[in-house]
Amino acid sequence: MMIACDLAKKAIERGGGPFGCIIVDKKTGEIVGRGHNRVAIDLDPTAHAEMVAIRDACRRLDSFSLENCVLYTSCEPCPMCLSAIYWARIPKLFFGNTKEDAAAIDFDDEFIYMELAKPANERKIEMRALSREYAQEAFCQWTQKEDRIKY
Amino acid sequence: MMIACDLAKKAIERGGGPFGCIIVDKKTGEIVGRGHNRVAIDLDPTAHAEMVAIRDACRRLDSFSLENCVLYTSCEPCPMCLSAIYWARIPKLFFGNTKEDAAAIDFDDEFIYMELAKPANERKIEMRALSREYAQEAFCQWTQKEDRIKY
Repeated sequence: MMIACDLAKKAIERGGGPFGCIIVDKKTGEIVGRGHNRVAIDLDPTAHAEMVAIRDACRRLDSFSLENCVLYTSCEPCPMCLSAIYWARIPKLFFGNTKEDAAAIDFDDEFIYMELAKPANERKIEMRALSREYAQEAFCQWTQKEDRIKY
Repeated sequence: MMIACDLAKKAIERGGGPFGCIIVDKKTGEIVGRGHNRVAIDLDPTAHAEMVAIRDACRRLDSFSLENCVLYTSCEPCPMCLSAIYWARIPKLFFGNTKEDAAAIDFDDEFIYMELAKPANERKIEMRALSREYAQEAFCQWTQKEDRIKY
């Protein structure tokens, strides 16, 4: 956890937000992924510490599944990162600062958690269905593909 | 929307999942970001179509904010992508296939939506607080930094 927190400090020095993360392989105890927030450095709103660490670990382990890993993050993950942790199949995580601590310094993840819990038509983002029939074609092609890789 | 759906078909050909996305600048009507699913191509669980398109648009527009854009995705976004859309400040999106269509071909985003809505201690992922005091240091440094960039 201290390494993740030190990455958060390094992020600040480099012009990113105060968030750091590492991913550890449970079997070897080795750090396989590292990341700190890079949003304002890379001008990439998806470059949160956990996302950067997940991508780093997947590259290193040559796999899109991190099911044998544990994640340490300097702050409780936002919904984007927590969802990515599910997609990466990481079963366990430790966090330093809480969501409330983050809100206190103006990083308001809670707003997005609340939005996601609403039905689509009540969200602040306008979401509209369009051309479902045409969109179905790719799904049909997918189900007919015999060598598709499930992830 | 048809371009987004055609990207979904291209994704299948290339070994990715059947999802495509474009981002359009409302003022110019120009496509500023394109992406298709690349999870199994890049071995990157975060490489969903919307994420790839957001990163592409931010690179092209040299900004971490896409507040003047509209997103077209071949399928209703998963919670990771929808959260990223909030972080990128995109105010409006159109989707082709629905979440239910995705679930029918075994892409079960609903599970993650349900997990996010639960309190941390009831989630399938084990989440534990650790070293909050040490983690606070980076947050203090951040608030004391006068030239911090808010995003």
